[in-house]
Amino acid sequence: MSRIITLTTDFGIKDHYAGSMKGAALSVNPGATIVDITHEIPKFDILCGAFSLGECCRHFPKGTIHIAVVDPGVGSARKPIAVDADGDIFIGPDNGIFTFILREAKRRRAFEISNPKFMSSSVSQTFHGRDIFAPAAAHISLGAGIEDLGGIVEKTAEISIPKPRIRGGEILGEVIYTDSFGNLVTNIPSIAIPRGARIYAGDSPALIEGVSKSYAEVGRGELLAIIGSGGFLEISVNQGRASDVIGGKSIRVLI
Amino acid sequence: MSRIITLTTDFGIKDHYAGSMKGAALSVNPGATIVDITHEIPKFDILCGAFSLGECCRHFPKGTIHIAVVDPGVGSARKPIAVDADGDIFIGPDNGIFTFILREAKRRRAFEISNPKFMSSSVSQTFHGRDIFAPAAAHISLGAGIEDLGGIVEKTAEISIPKPRIRGGEILGEVIYTDSFGNLVTNIPSIAIPRGARIYAGDSPALIEGVSKSYAEVGRGELLAIIGSGGFLEISVNQGRASDVIGGKSIRVLI
Amino acid sequence: MSRIITLTTDFGIKDHYAGSMKGAALSVNPGATIVDITHEIPKFDILCGAFSLGECCRHFPKGTIHIAVVDPGVGSARKPIAVDADGDIFIGPDNGIFTFILREAKRRRAFEISNPKFMSSSVSQTFHGRDIFAPAAAHISLGAGIEDLGGIVEKTAEISIPKPRIRGGEILGEVIYTDSFGNLVTNIPSIAIPRGARIYAGDSPALIEGVSKSYAEVGRGELLAIIGSGGFLEISVNQGRASDVIGGKSIRVLI
Repeated sequence: MSRIITLTTDFGIKDHYAGSMKGAALSVNPGATIVDITHEIPKFDILCGAFSLGECCRHFPKGTIHIAVVDPGVGSARKPIAVDADGDIFIGPDNGIFTFILREAKRRRAFEISNPKFMSSSVSQTFHGRDIFAPAAAHISLGAGIEDLGGIVEKTAEISIPKPRIRGGEILGEVIYTDSFGNLVTNIPSIAIPRGARIYAGDSPALIEGVSKSYAEVGRGELLAIIGSGGFLEISVNQGRASDVIGGKSIRVLI
Repeated sequence: MSRIITLTTDFGIKDHYAGSMKGAALSVNPGATIVDITHEIPKFDILCGAFSLGECCRHFPKGTIHIAVVDPGVGSARKPIAVDADGDIFIGPDNGIFTFILREAKRRRAFEISNPKFMSSSVSQTFHGRDIFAPAAAHISLGAGIEDLGGIVEKTAEISIPKPRIRGGEILGEVIYTDSFGNLVTNIPSIAIPRGARIYAGDSPALIEGVSKSYAEVGRGELLAIIGSGGFLEISVNQGRASDVIGGKSIRVLI
Repeated sequence: MSRIITLTTDFGIKDHYAGSMKGAALSVNPGATIVDITHEIPKFDILCGAFSLGECCRHFPKGTIHIAVVDPGVGSARKPIAVDADGDIFIGPDNGIFTFILREAKRRRAFEISNPKFMSSSVSQTFHGRDIFAPAAAHISLGAGIEDLGGIVEKTAEISIPKPRIRGGEILGEVIYTDSFGNLVTNIPSIAIPRGARIYAGDSPALIEGVSKSYAEVGRGELLAIIGSGGFLEISVNQGRASDVIGGKSIRVLI
């Protein structure tokens, strides 16, 4: 089993919460390698968490244990779950945070985390990341099977993910993530886009002619379209911020 | 000895300072596991640092070495110290940053860090985190005893921590920490509060009837009281920010 | 070879990008120790990245592998390089990010990273940090030589770094970095400054008499000059922010 445990949360970095999760995991397995993906998912934004985790996890070694906690329903009826998706392990609330991963997986199994043996000795009402998810992940990193954690979950929660549509000679997509560089990541996969496509970005659409191979293909401060690192069409500005230029989320690609 | 070294500072994450501390520790013990708790303690806010460390450290394995640097008096007369509190090790300035830990510990010993053998070869005037605390922590992680660092410190500095008072049928407490979710953490321990208590929060007090078991017990956007993950009464808004609704720090619980 | 790999980027901490780099490195060497220096270099600010890395790297163990990615020209003609500078390894774009390190090194060798064996199986146009730099660093941490990565680079890119000038009885320097405490780090080395020097800071210059040994030598809220942790003259305010008081970057020291 992998000893690598990643963390994706909306806890922010000001509070000690991510630190407390690390402590809880290391208390079970002091040899675990704990890796921060991000703690700056916008509060309660399950779609953003699901997207970030889905983009990132494929770059980790097979068997890595990923904890994701964006959990507005902590302490309510939603179940804590552990999922095996094609050999990678995902731990978190059953609220749709694993939607991208489960949709793309060929093989998937999910179990409720209900066996107190794999939790902290006392479980708080508000912090399952520390008291349930981190200890469970650490036990798995020591060799526990996810089937030992609790009963099977036949149907996991999913969130709705906006999908691009093809209509006539157009792909109608939208921006699903804006990164800290101001790049607009769309839901249109690279495979759908011919290199010379004309792209209309935004609600008062700006026309972009063709897909660039690098930011430097256009002048500094100019708009471009490019295939981003996740394999989706992105709208960018060379050394600038597309999010400052483009208003609205709609993207139209003439093919 | 533990090879886990945690960091709690007010250094922020923009500068290389936390990174330089990690380098200094790894230069002494390349096998140390270094864990960020937070570097976003508000500048010079010793109470906040003391509270965050006190809440977090109990979730780490026994023997963990915790460095805390919120140090407005760096380079002045305040001593660098190492403390053993019930078997956990704390390293930092003697300015009250360990107040919560020392008050709760059953056994405690403190030593000045004065032996240059356990410091960097040159010690700057402004960055004891890198030049004194990180190397000392790393030497301890390799097996050095804290009594080897320097002379015993009989009386460590303490800061004043606001405590709740009981008056008639009321507990008078206050908000001592506001987290990044806008939750208001009070200084009133759960043990003091009956479930049906009436709680007045803020200076133009809002009445909260009873203590909830989860955020979802009230409607979205509604105020509630709950026992937080540190065992203290917290004032929250379900999927919202109590800090946007409640003004002032005073909390009154009718018991 | 060291198994320590550090990261210095302008990626920020909101996105999963730093996390994806960590995954890519751990996929090559699951035993690597990955250390964040900072991901908050201002976007595209190569000078700031170069300065931060130069200040920080000397505190890591000899042989540490440092990745630096501030890379406005990603995907353009600038080469990915690996540099051995006095036994430490630096990986990143050949755009001047290693200027401080290369200037101070006694021995230096640079190689292009062009051998696909040391890259991800597919290399994106926009994210060489994940697809080229992280895998290359991890291969080096496993024992690969930098000369195996590709052809030698005879002349690496440099950026212009402002240098202090001596004119008559004055040193004319400038602020080259402002830290999160508001300290103004200048480019004037400590060795140039007599303790009783008179210092004029800013464009409407404030006079500071002499160099302090600690912040506490002046009253709270007062300006002072001090030798900072990097060995350069800094302008500070005791428990305050010099950057709020001093306008402009010019620093004049009467010697």
